[in-house]
Amino acid sequence: MTRTPPDAPLRVAVLGCGVVGSQVVRLLRDQAGDLAARVGRPIELAGVAVRRLDAPRDVDLPADLLTTDALGLVSRDDVDLVVEVIGGIEPARTLILTALEHGASVVSANKALLAEDGPTLFEAAEKAGRDLYYEAAVAGAIPILRPLRESLAGDRVTRVIGIVNGTTNFVLDKMDSSGAGFAEALEEAQDLGYAEADPTADVEGFDAAAKAAILASLAFHSRVTASDVHREGITEVTAADIASAREMGCVVKLLAICELRPGSGDGDGDDEDAAVAVRVHPAMIPRTHPLASVREAYNAVFVESEAAGQLMFYGPGAGGPPTASAVLGDLVGVARNRVTGTRGAGESAYADRAVLPMGEARTRYHVAIDVDDRAGVLATVATAFSEHGVSIQTVRQEGRDDDAQLVVVSHGATDAQLAATVEHLRGLDVVREVTSVMRVEGVEE
Amino acid sequence: MTRTPPDAPLRVAVLGCGVVGSQVVRLLRDQAGDLAARVGRPIELAGVAVRRLDAPRDVDLPADLLTTDALGLVSRDDVDLVVEVIGGIEPARTLILTALEHGASVVSANKALLAEDGPTLFEAAEKAGRDLYYEAAVAGAIPILRPLRESLAGDRVTRVIGIVNGTTNFVLDKMDSSGAGFAEALEEAQDLGYAEADPTADVEGFDAAAKAAILASLAFHSRVTASDVHREGITEVTAADIASAREMGCVVKLLAICELRPGSGDGDGDDEDAAVAVRVHPAMIPRTHPLASVREAYNAVFVESEAAGQLMFYGPGAGGPPTASAVLGDLVGVARNRVTGTRGAGESAYADRAVLPMGEARTRYHVAIDVDDRAGVLATVATAFSEHGVSIQTVRQEGRDDDAQLVVVSHGATDAQLAATVEHLRGLDVVREVTSVMRVEGVEE
Repeated sequence: MTRTPPDAPLRVAVLGCGVVGSQVVRLLRDQAGDLAARVGRPIELAGVAVRRLDAPRDVDLPADLLTTDALGLVSRDDVDLVVEVIGGIEPARTLILTALEHGASVVSANKALLAEDGPTLFEAAEKAGRDLYYEAAVAGAIPILRPLRESLAGDRVTRVIGIVNGTTNFVLDKMDSSGAGFAEALEEAQDLGYAEADPTADVEGFDAAAKAAILASLAFHSRVTASDVHREGITEVTAADIASAREMGCVVKLLAICELRPGSGDGDGDDEDAAVAVRVHPAMIPRTHPLASVREAYNAVFVESEAAGQLMFYGPGAGGPPTASAVLGDLVGVARNRVTGTRGAGESAYADRAVLPMGEARTRYHVAIDVDDRAGVLATVATAFSEHGVSIQTVRQEGRDDDAQLVVVSHGATDAQLAATVEHLRGLDVVREVTSVMRVEGVEE
Repeated sequence: MTRTPPDAPLRVAVLGCGVVGSQVVRLLRDQAGDLAARVGRPIELAGVAVRRLDAPRDVDLPADLLTTDALGLVSRDDVDLVVEVIGGIEPARTLILTALEHGASVVSANKALLAEDGPTLFEAAEKAGRDLYYEAAVAGAIPILRPLRESLAGDRVTRVIGIVNGTTNFVLDKMDSSGAGFAEALEEAQDLGYAEADPTADVEGFDAAAKAAILASLAFHSRVTASDVHREGITEVTAADIASAREMGCVVKLLAICELRPGSGDGDGDDEDAAVAVRVHPAMIPRTHPLASVREAYNAVFVESEAAGQLMFYGPGAGGPPTASAVLGDLVGVARNRVTGTRGAGESAYADRAVLPMGEARTRYHVAIDVDDRAGVLATVATAFSEHGVSIQTVRQEGRDDDAQLVVVSHGATDAQLAATVEHLRGLDVVREVTSVMRVEGVEE
């Protein structure tokens, strides 16, 4: 399948020349000598597909390298490698599939597409005998997919907890440090360029859910798509929630949580009926947890595995140059494979684990309740918890004139048990209002 | 070179069955099904080389798998993969070279050997067309070598700062949290099993220096050996140094620092006369630095690169299961390569950068000086700094009866300039004693 003589350059087509694409092009040029030495052959720009030829862009490109015909570019016989940094489902999917059919190796940063329809792409890569790498799709410059796929290939990953969306981390961090409410913190994030004009994908957790699906698939060797991920955003998080977390020595983060639930087997490494739970929601974590110190728009991924124990990977989760660094790392990888006539590890979904519904995920709840200030209230509330099989870890009671506030933190239980408890609480006469419900993560049950 | 039919197991010889080796054997068994699925062929234990057949060990092994003839084991025709977890220079080197000559792929955790004589091993692997992987040699379970070699292959790493020795981090952390002196903290580390009876390799920085050489070689695509590394241990660190660091908002860590010094070129990516400086010494870093929160015996490696920015990798740096996790990850990698008939990336030393002597490394000093409490002392001391071209960032003066203490923190300068300044200070009439000299890292110049 090698169409180029051994010492000829490998030719790369870049699809998209925005924030990331322009940095990919810049690095390809600035580091040309190093890239050639690391790959064993020079890498040469074959063309860049853009939406408008005359749009302003951050990098100077000769006019003859620019084209609006992306499909034509990926179909060319002289293109060995394709970098897709357009984003979105279409036309990205068609372009990647076409590139693979024409024998190119592909590097993509497209989390939405990989989380929605990864298997279609992986099968096309397998059929074509080419690589599809996508490190940049999760947590920007942080090497996390390769460590999961390769470094931890001899271990059994049991949990991945990530702060994988910089916008929401910036907003929550701002709320924590300044006491601001959600709307105010979001506005500041928008002013500083950390949030987009339409922040829905970030603040509603869609972006994090796509990344969670990708992380879970790799960690547990199973297919997990975005629709398998339970998703809650941060728009309902209040300044009072943040203050309540602070009183508990906690901080609120939007977490992508991927867990392996052991099966009924003997607990050994071949636990065939183990299942997977994947969820994205705001949660309180102790300030002593390594993830708690991840500030501003930084990302971090915390991994627990049977033998390695607790690992954390930290760095910038977005931005042009960091994302381009991850793309280029992948590009060197797929290019080396072209030179040696091999492929990297493809999809690994052999374990084929079931994905549990959210109700079966195990977690802990922090519940704040406004109650009547009269005798027996605590007993009534405690009974509601125990009736649903939920054990209480701590209760804090604060009197206020004629009513009082109870703050309850549960031990671990299923999300269904906890949700039923809260529903039950809302129906009690002595309960005026359940003012805050938030999950607590990063502590043992 | 494949001696086994396509579906036959790959056969692995394990050299050493101590803390790490026994965990490697355990994981090979417990995760046999997963490993086979990930590699594409089963991995089967061919034999385990031990020093004494009757020694107690943490894993049950059939007697016919044990041998004291390590050289015979690695020379066998039915061994495809060799795991070396003996440590030390010999016989490990001879065993690895023999294994490669006989066509086996090798995984090693041997930092001392790789740092002293890596090139000999890499050349033997190249000649044999086999892999030599060694992720476990640096920072235990933390994936750091693969990210440097592969994930950052499209970027330009400019600095690596690691806490890569758990023993010394435990001792310094204990001194910081309890106010204990070095000897007392070391004794506690020994009691808890974090330090060996003869702690020389750890507390004198030899272990960290070996790891620094390995990190620098990979980060800068150049050959750096242990003898190129400037090394100072932590035995001279006093409780007063720790207290002084605390007053500055700093913490003392034993750091492995690998830096790329830009050349005189145009500053682009092909800066051909850039050089490398590699050093291990205790240093103060601000408590806000990500490395400052690395507690107890944990390890972390902080990486700065041109495009990715600041990354950090954190986790357990030693111990049987964590180290075995890293070994098994490598084993899956070299085994996959056997199955697909390829090799991973070998040594990358094309950049061939010069290694600077310590005197040319740029750093900052924190100097505490007991001086006479009389007029003009500060001016005399300041003149000593400026005569050696060292700019002062801050001075703090504390009077005490008839004498006084000055604490000076410099701006960045070469280590030679700073050392000359301290020498000069020691010769001044007004200086009674230079009580503490420590470098300050992790802040901009």
